[in-house]
Amino acid sequence: MSTATAALRPADAVIPALRALLGERLSTGAAVREQHSRGEDTTTPHLPDAVAFAATTEEVSRILALCHQHGVPVVPFGAGTSLEGHVTPVRGGISLDLSRMTAVLEVNAEDMDCLVEPGVTRQQLNDFLRDRGLFFPVDPGSHCTIGGMCATRASGTNAVRYGTMRENVLGLEVVLADGRVITTGGRTRKAANGYDLTRLFIGSEGTLGVITKVRLRLHGIPEAMSAAVCQFPTLAAAVGTVIATMQSGIPVARIEILDEVQMAACIRHSRLEGFRTLPTLFLEFHGTPAGVKEQAEAVEAIAAEAGGTGFAWATDAESRNRLWQARHDAYWAAIALRPGARSVTTDICVPISRLAEALLGAKRDIEESGLVAPIVGHVGDGNFHTCIVVNPDDPAEIERAWALDRKIVARALDLGGTCSGEHGVGLGKREFLEREHGPEALAVMRGLKATLDPKGILNPGKMFRN
Amino acid sequence: MSTATAALRPADAVIPALRALLGERLSTGAAVREQHSRGEDTTTPHLPDAVAFAATTEEVSRILALCHQHGVPVVPFGAGTSLEGHVTPVRGGISLDLSRMTAVLEVNAEDMDCLVEPGVTRQQLNDFLRDRGLFFPVDPGSHCTIGGMCATRASGTNAVRYGTMRENVLGLEVVLADGRVITTGGRTRKAANGYDLTRLFIGSEGTLGVITKVRLRLHGIPEAMSAAVCQFPTLAAAVGTVIATMQSGIPVARIEILDEVQMAACIRHSRLEGFRTLPTLFLEFHGTPAGVKEQAEAVEAIAAEAGGTGFAWATDAESRNRLWQARHDAYWAAIALRPGARSVTTDICVPISRLAEALLGAKRDIEESGLVAPIVGHVGDGNFHTCIVVNPDDPAEIERAWALDRKIVARALDLGGTCSGEHGVGLGKREFLEREHGPEALAVMRGLKATLDPKGILNPGKMFRN
Repeated sequence: MSTATAALRPADAVIPALRALLGERLSTGAAVREQHSRGEDTTTPHLPDAVAFAATTEEVSRILALCHQHGVPVVPFGAGTSLEGHVTPVRGGISLDLSRMTAVLEVNAEDMDCLVEPGVTRQQLNDFLRDRGLFFPVDPGSHCTIGGMCATRASGTNAVRYGTMRENVLGLEVVLADGRVITTGGRTRKAANGYDLTRLFIGSEGTLGVITKVRLRLHGIPEAMSAAVCQFPTLAAAVGTVIATMQSGIPVARIEILDEVQMAACIRHSRLEGFRTLPTLFLEFHGTPAGVKEQAEAVEAIAAEAGGTGFAWATDAESRNRLWQARHDAYWAAIALRPGARSVTTDICVPISRLAEALLGAKRDIEESGLVAPIVGHVGDGNFHTCIVVNPDDPAEIERAWALDRKIVARALDLGGTCSGEHGVGLGKREFLEREHGPEALAVMRGLKATLDPKGILNPGKMFRN
Repeated sequence: MSTATAALRPADAVIPALRALLGERLSTGAAVREQHSRGEDTTTPHLPDAVAFAATTEEVSRILALCHQHGVPVVPFGAGTSLEGHVTPVRGGISLDLSRMTAVLEVNAEDMDCLVEPGVTRQQLNDFLRDRGLFFPVDPGSHCTIGGMCATRASGTNAVRYGTMRENVLGLEVVLADGRVITTGGRTRKAANGYDLTRLFIGSEGTLGVITKVRLRLHGIPEAMSAAVCQFPTLAAAVGTVIATMQSGIPVARIEILDEVQMAACIRHSRLEGFRTLPTLFLEFHGTPAGVKEQAEAVEAIAAEAGGTGFAWATDAESRNRLWQARHDAYWAAIALRPGARSVTTDICVPISRLAEALLGAKRDIEESGLVAPIVGHVGDGNFHTCIVVNPDDPAEIERAWALDRKIVARALDLGGTCSGEHGVGLGKREFLEREHGPEALAVMRGLKATLDPKGILNPGKMFRN
């Protein structure tokens, strides 16, 4: 079983028909193609032959039917925030830009669900929902689209309490490779009604179909929220606090680690005041006023025992937002350490009991490598990143960064972990997939790909090494 | 795309080889075959040609390789508690009984996960875990196996708080139709590392592979638990209380409805004292002592407003257990209303805002039908059952029961619901699948089936009408 991408053809055959369909929304201009040549990663840019800005499901369906007929690659594109090469058109073809499909089609406040188009960003959605007392919790930090978040099975800071896209998507509308449109899932909280097609497309990285509508599970804005920051003498003390907190079953809403290098970067980039360049935890608690107090006191006691100091509170929305804005900008703060830099980003995730080994091991690897790589992560889930800051024009340095990435990932796999907690496989993590799943499971994945995309036109070259 | 079951052959070709492999664990005796001829449902029994009791993954692999080679049907069998005909060997072949694979292979208390064989029942697992302060929350009530619960995407009373098998399975070992063995998922809380094969097999009802190991997510036994019972003057008042409770975001651990018919049956069957034959809610709250008190008081206030009376508490383990034992025995209490009876069971699930329409509509349908059908259900998820009590030897009555079932399901689908919240499709709900998903999505499901089981040997005749 292997994907049949050998016969893929250039886009010339479809461009006239696409222009007839889309008018000015079919672009072959250099600047637009350049913009769609890669995400925020360090992959080698590849120009698509054209960029198609779709406005409706019907258009997506017709674009795919055409490209399928002619064997032309299609690479779905949202906000272009991928860190693993997902949106790089490595075999040319059409970059299918869904970022103009931004309608919020339904909000069912009483059932806490909504239906959105894939180009809606999580911030747009939360702005829209705020007056209704609802929010969508999955928060990867970047200005990503809901469609892209589905495609990569995204998670982020709130996942420790609210789950990832796997848990928070109720259903999808998907356009298949040949243009057929299906609806998956439904509006109920649970169902035992056939194969779980929703979860099959969540995390499929644009290789099985193009997501054109998303039904999301929403949550009530908690009655009470408080954030806290705690600094530690050592990274080991901070990690120990995370492990003890999680093992105590305290339902923290967020628990994020920033090592002293990342803290220095954030203090500088986000003008954070009152903090030292020490390993730090950012925390948030959601619940009733009494529940939030109870949770926070429990974590404060654990932190104090580990030598944590300055358990600082931020219960008002403004200081909470400033804090989380700094956390969200951690990636930009990291690459701002060197002008013009980009990042090779690790994304490992391990069982919580192995987090200290994984994280302190990564720290040692970084020190030995001589590279600059702040550590930041969603440690409540056992997931953290090292943003290895590189000069994008220095292939030798990029290769050293990938070597460091491979070392950190290899240790994670040895500890029962995964190469990707939330960024996805894309181009960057393909080599680990077989080691992680074994050849037979990978053959099943390839079989699913061949079934749903027999001509291999959907985001070819991603996830699998051919 | 359709499943290639036309060429299935009788089991004679494999029985000598299976006997050589399994010895006395390959049975062709009438009593054992009869026992494996159906579950707890009202489907017409079909005898398998033989029953194979597997003890290891290796044996399951060899059994499947043989049956695949010879085109012989294989029907996985656990505790035989299916209510939708899943274990009925409608095309003969081998009933593959996994109930002797009962090892708990690993418990990782610090990561709150475990690895079990598929024949472990949820009670066995929870008995095993109790001393470690952990529990597995998914609780369909019956004495079902973990493997069967995976196969049907089971849920039950605790799902409103802890999720279903979809959310609580971290990974699987699966034997594919041809005997190849794959491992899916992993030990981390989240991952973005390729297609979600775990969720593909969860709810696949034995039609895509045979589950031989299950890695489960466990939970800490809550610090405090309390149960409560509240009775209502009308079914509408009880349903209204459920909807208001869920919409308030109170994290109830269980919220179950029993209509007055079901209450009468339970009072008689389980010798429940101190209750009237009124529509009733059974509730449970988990958390810290203060959190549990807060939740319960909030629900009590909502119930009182709806006219609920006798909000009775049970904080000690013994009275809590007696209460939930009665709830778990509701199915048996229902069919005990008529000696020798069985049940045609509806299993609809709707968005919570439509629950009153669905449930009160079902109540009217039952009254109009003249049949006896207690209502009981996991209403926090919008899921409830009507156990339509029938004489299993009266085909005309069974047909009337199915007609009632179809009416209740049709309304649920009109309300944005599903034909099955947790029991699965099996034989009984196949006719609804196309209406629910549409022909294109069903074609995708059939395509997945054809890819993973090209000869159609795995539980043929289930889920799809050929």
